Amino acid sequence: MITDPLRDLPTIDDVEDAAQRLKGVTLHTPLLRFDALDAVIGAPVWIKPETLQRTGSFKMRGAWNRISRIPDAEKPKGVVAFSSGNHAQGVAEAARILGMKATIVMPSDAPRAKIESTKKRGAEVRLYDRISESREAIAAELVKASGATTVRPFDDAWIMAGQGTAGLEAAKDAAAQGAAFGSLICNASGGGLLAGVAVAFEALSPSTEVYVAEPDGHDDLIRSLAAKKIVANAPGIRSIADALMSPEPGVLPFAIHQRRVTGGFTATNDQLLDAMSFAFHNLKLVVEPGGANALAVLLNNREHFAKRGPVLVVLSGGNVDAELFAQAIARQPPAWRNGGDSSVLRNGDTFASARAT
Amino acid sequence: MITDPLRDLPTIDDVEDAAQRLKGVTLHTPLLRFDALDAVIGAPVWIKPETLQRTGSFKMRGAWNRISRIPDAEKPKGVVAFSSGNHAQGVAEAARILGMKATIVMPSDAPRAKIESTKKRGAEVRLYDRISESREAIAAELVKASGATTVRPFDDAWIMAGQGTAGLEAAKDAAAQGAAFGSLICNASGGGLLAGVAVAFEALSPSTEVYVAEPDGHDDLIRSLAAKKIVANAPGIRSIADALMSPEPGVLPFAIHQRRVTGGFTATNDQLLDAMSFAFHNLKLVVEPGGANALAVLLNNREHFAKRGPVLVVLSGGNVDAELFAQAIARQPPAWRNGGDSSVLRNGDTFASARAT
Repeated sequence: MITDPLRDLPTIDDVEDAAQRLKGVTLHTPLLRFDALDAVIGAPVWIKPETLQRTGSFKMRGAWNRISRIPDAEKPKGVVAFSSGNHAQGVAEAARILGMKATIVMPSDAPRAKIESTKKRGAEVRLYDRISESREAIAAELVKASGATTVRPFDDAWIMAGQGTAGLEAAKDAAAQGAAFGSLICNASGGGLLAGVAVAFEALSPSTEVYVAEPDGHDDLIRSLAAKKIVANAPGIRSIADALMSPEPGVLPFAIHQRRVTGGFTATNDQLLDAMSFAFHNLKLVVEPGGANALAVLLNNREHFAKRGPVLVVLSGGNVDAELFAQAIARQPPAWRNGGDSSVLRNGDTFASARAT
Repeated sequence: MITDPLRDLPTIDDVEDAAQRLKGVTLHTPLLRFDALDAVIGAPVWIKPETLQRTGSFKMRGAWNRISRIPDAEKPKGVVAFSSGNHAQGVAEAARILGMKATIVMPSDAPRAKIESTKKRGAEVRLYDRISESREAIAAELVKASGATTVRPFDDAWIMAGQGTAGLEAAKDAAAQGAAFGSLICNASGGGLLAGVAVAFEALSPSTEVYVAEPDGHDDLIRSLAAKKIVANAPGIRSIADALMSPEPGVLPFAIHQRRVTGGFTATNDQLLDAMSFAFHNLKLVVEPGGANALAVLLNNREHFAKRGPVLVVLSGGNVDAELFAQAIARQPPAWRNGGDSSVLRNGDTFASARAT
């Protein structure tokens, strides 16, 4: 069990413990099936829609597992977090339920829907300019002044264990239905969700290959895994996947990724928009750009995944502004057909072989 | 059990029988919860998202339960149906799976998404002009020429029993989670879904009050229930709820409605668009105008439903064109707050008292 969340790695016991703690607070999201998606991929696809989770993303899982453990004596001092929006809403909602003050440092160009939803949940939002200001410095100052607890977005074992409950639910629900996944695809920014999900599947379905989905130009985790050390993205590259713009993988998540991630693929902005459009037209689900990353990877690498059998896709979030969503769904997605890969397997087999050595 | 589907009314045994027949074909859609919705209504709300059902609406349930019963000797002659689009897709998909030819008579102004999806499932689509042509005449001619079986949209006991499986699933899933609904809201056009759901709840949760949601100007069922006989809508009124434009309730469904429907409410076009926008922003679900009717009724009659306790809302379909959806989500929905009703209870208590007499 975790004793120091800033140094320990979560185990399956920690994920199970988080699941107990989340009961009655977060949703056990369903596993969904869509015949239209199966037909395009040529294999059974299972969707874990964290878009339907409280606050519209998986982030509430980790936030609750972390914040609810803050000692009573510390609670009145509140919490501080920085986030482009999904972690912000998760932290704000967890703090609201616990009657705690939350201050969130958000970039001024975050999606309006995310800023508004964070405020609506009672948090104080401190906007900053991505170019000229440091969110870490602002957060540190806030903590110094208030004594608040910092709620990190991913470099925290309790956060990772909380996010991992999404994987735990999916693994258990699949087993109850007699399904076994050949592979799963999960996006990563700092990599807390991916690490937690990997821990759950390591214990419950070790033969499932774990793939990371990243936005084009933000493939820091794919390159870090290939380099066997953490490397950062080039600064200044902007993806529409606002939720996935961490400069590099978290230190604690990366230790788990190195152990468990088989391969990774990227998706361009156009591929993310097409995946959002596909989800609108065929799945009737609202997915944000970053949340659609794993689906985009699946749609553009069908052969790779189809030959591995049933595949699990995590849709991590659905908090998108109406304007961008309208732009996405106006697109006519490619006529994806079962059997072909439309993009090159840039990184697909790198880590599998690296891991075997 | 049903012997003549064009005369008999379905019982709970028929709905249970349909559920067995639908196994492995349609989805058991989940029951969803959303804290943001509960907060607005002031009571626990449970969503049955038939938007996620195969073909994007509940219609596949009835279509499969009907078409799969066609005797082998009749199967080569195919099926004929008329529909504005959701029944069309359900019939097309059921026929495709069974290897049968399907011909669907659809209005030329049906949503493009519905026409395309019907064709994609292998059906032949015969477009007609709503003003100058009769869909019944066209269908009759097709049947005469081919000997095909007509698949009615609602006036068929097997169709009603099939649609009722949505209610059966919801009633059983709620009971398994310890929930009991004070009321449920379900939209109606011909009323097959509402009738089937009512039969399921009559058996499994008789204390749940059943409410119908209709588009403004298409309140034929509400007026028929008040008049205790079938009355039709004024011709020519157009709602954006393209799925709910039957001129009057079906004869067989109405016999069940009279027995079980407590009350009904209407929603204007603006209220439907606002409900679609609310679902986009807060539920992350894609809902078509007619599919959002029950949600619109709940949002605009919060006090009425909140005081009855937990409420079930059926979202019947999500097949909407991108342009109309973009228009809906660009709207800023009213700041609904718990506790007030923004529209008058036009019909809310009429049938409850009528039924008690």
